[in-house]
Amino acid sequence: MSKIESEERLVHVPLGERAYDILIGPGLIGRAGGEISTRIKCRKAAIITDDNVGAIYLDPLMDSLQTDGIEAVSLSLPPGEKTKSFDYLTKVCDVLLEARIERNDAVIALGGGVIGDLTGFAAGIVRRGVRFVQIPTSLLSQVDSSVGGKTGINTRHGKNLVGVFNQPDLVLADTDVLNTLSEREFRAGYAEVVKYGLIDKPDFFAWLERNWRDVFAGGPARIEAIATSCQAKADVVVADERENGRRALLNLGHTFGHALEAATEYDSSRLVHGEGVSIGIALAHRFSNRLNLLGVEDVARVEAHLKAVGLPTSMDEIPGELPSTEFLMEAIGQDKKVKGGKLTFILTRGIGQSFVADDVPASEVFAFLEEMRGV
Amino acid sequence: MSKIESEERLVHVPLGERAYDILIGPGLIGRAGGEISTRIKCRKAAIITDDNVGAIYLDPLMDSLQTDGIEAVSLSLPPGEKTKSFDYLTKVCDVLLEARIERNDAVIALGGGVIGDLTGFAAGIVRRGVRFVQIPTSLLSQVDSSVGGKTGINTRHGKNLVGVFNQPDLVLADTDVLNTLSEREFRAGYAEVVKYGLIDKPDFFAWLERNWRDVFAGGPARIEAIATSCQAKADVVVADERENGRRALLNLGHTFGHALEAATEYDSSRLVHGEGVSIGIALAHRFSNRLNLLGVEDVARVEAHLKAVGLPTSMDEIPGELPSTEFLMEAIGQDKKVKGGKLTFILTRGIGQSFVADDVPASEVFAFLEEMRGV
Repeated sequence: MSKIESEERLVHVPLGERAYDILIGPGLIGRAGGEISTRIKCRKAAIITDDNVGAIYLDPLMDSLQTDGIEAVSLSLPPGEKTKSFDYLTKVCDVLLEARIERNDAVIALGGGVIGDLTGFAAGIVRRGVRFVQIPTSLLSQVDSSVGGKTGINTRHGKNLVGVFNQPDLVLADTDVLNTLSEREFRAGYAEVVKYGLIDKPDFFAWLERNWRDVFAGGPARIEAIATSCQAKADVVVADERENGRRALLNLGHTFGHALEAATEYDSSRLVHGEGVSIGIALAHRFSNRLNLLGVEDVARVEAHLKAVGLPTSMDEIPGELPSTEFLMEAIGQDKKVKGGKLTFILTRGIGQSFVADDVPASEVFAFLEEMRGV
Repeated sequence: MSKIESEERLVHVPLGERAYDILIGPGLIGRAGGEISTRIKCRKAAIITDDNVGAIYLDPLMDSLQTDGIEAVSLSLPPGEKTKSFDYLTKVCDVLLEARIERNDAVIALGGGVIGDLTGFAAGIVRRGVRFVQIPTSLLSQVDSSVGGKTGINTRHGKNLVGVFNQPDLVLADTDVLNTLSEREFRAGYAEVVKYGLIDKPDFFAWLERNWRDVFAGGPARIEAIATSCQAKADVVVADERENGRRALLNLGHTFGHALEAATEYDSSRLVHGEGVSIGIALAHRFSNRLNLLGVEDVARVEAHLKAVGLPTSMDEIPGELPSTEFLMEAIGQDKKVKGGKLTFILTRGIGQSFVADDVPASEVFAFLEEMRGV
């Protein structure tokens, strides 16, 4: 017991009235009722989960809430990106209203990024905002969507194009849960961990190069990597909550990544988000090299680390045919990171030296993509 | 021309980063392009309107935008409360994304409260927020929804139960438009004007008692009444933007009013929002009298003024059968103004002496409603 507590880490996200804590460590789902009730004086909660995660963790979570006097209802949705739709948003809102969740009651997202994004959006719009607790159950959601308050759904025009900024009131990142992830899913989340090093933490990237095996194995190194990632994201978000400037750095690898996800029709058998980000990170470094911003040795170092952990680094690793480069450009153009018709990209001058480039010519991007595809 | 400008009023809503101006006066739609382009550096705009309003004002607005170099698309929706639905929200978001409205482009709501609430919600969630301009075309929307940033849609559980707080970037209240409103619609909006006097401005209520004929006739008295109402609402909203306390005062007459709207299934041939508010205001005063908070002479004075302008003050003026008192209580219970299971009502100790009562027993409300219905 004392061991468990000593391993636990707390990252505070200081956003004024919207400040909140992220607890990171083992066994948190079993203690969720206590952690929630001491911080949020709610009498009711609604848990939104997916069928995979819910099958394992819904009962223990319900038990814990009940033990601490919180009456809870639950809704389990199909797993997968297609659940982030207007239809399911409508469904979740309906269930929350049916359960008479009030402004001070809690909506709990128990799941990965899909459940977190959808549930956070619903919690932000039902009664124009009720309490929101995240229990992220994938590495990706623990290091990415648990910080920053971005919520949303997908439309036929692209991913996350509709949503709100809604900071959670509490995040419980139970690291035991990660032991049941598939290797592929864990790896995909790891791409976001690497990203934080490459944005502005060269020492963390070097630490990951040395310690990634321990991070994959679990234990203190994993908790350390998650806490460092959450802290890194929190630092960026606190400086720029509404994404007017610096926050765009978090999109390193994501402009290309999102286009590739669109190109594979969000089919997770071909590409999951983190794999798209991994390829996107590699492409962002190669593109920066092409623009004479970055030496080829840094490109090689980044690719070597991604490959070492088993992540893809080029488009030809994606199974099946990709659509035309025109399609990819279209997907990039519709990306939220468009401003005044110019393309915004995150480029880099070295390991951990990323920056926001506001006016990358579309023609350069097109030529680069053609080259990368060997067209 | 100088006459027009001398009549125009400006109400500034000082909400820090979200501060904005409300311009009130004649001819503003014809000058919208200039007013928008000097304040918001947008290249594109999307106008959302309804078929009634659009038939008259869409062309002049499009012309004005074009003259000032703003490229605009438009979408016209069926008029009426049923348009405030998830289905139309989805539709509006789709049109905004299809038109590639970016974060610094403007979404313009041209219409009454339904269009304003729906469009403001869509503008708040597309790309997690784009610029939002309101051109309210009813008295109700000029004095109510143009201030405060509440947006939303209805669900089968009740009105406005899903939405966001989204302050507009600019409001253009063109008072010429009000000349084309039906008498019934103008009167309904006037109920909200009266409300501001009854919340905390007894002098304004007395001014209305003396000048209501001029307000209904148009001209300077009308502009004065609208500006005073906007200023009154702005004062309350600035003190409590997210409705944690004082802002609830704006719900004077609305808890009963919303229940009556639900009871008539939002059928505007039986009851429109402002009429529900008028009856709700009368009931709030009678209920306060029943609780020995308010003298019967003040109840009579409020009812006399509402009746003088032709507004309803009792439930038996609503055409058709009303459902059971149990139904009304259910509708009141689902209202957003519920906290911890207790009923919150806005009560009053006199003309312009309203206050928030947090723990009104449901049994008192039930007995009062039964009595009012003559059951």
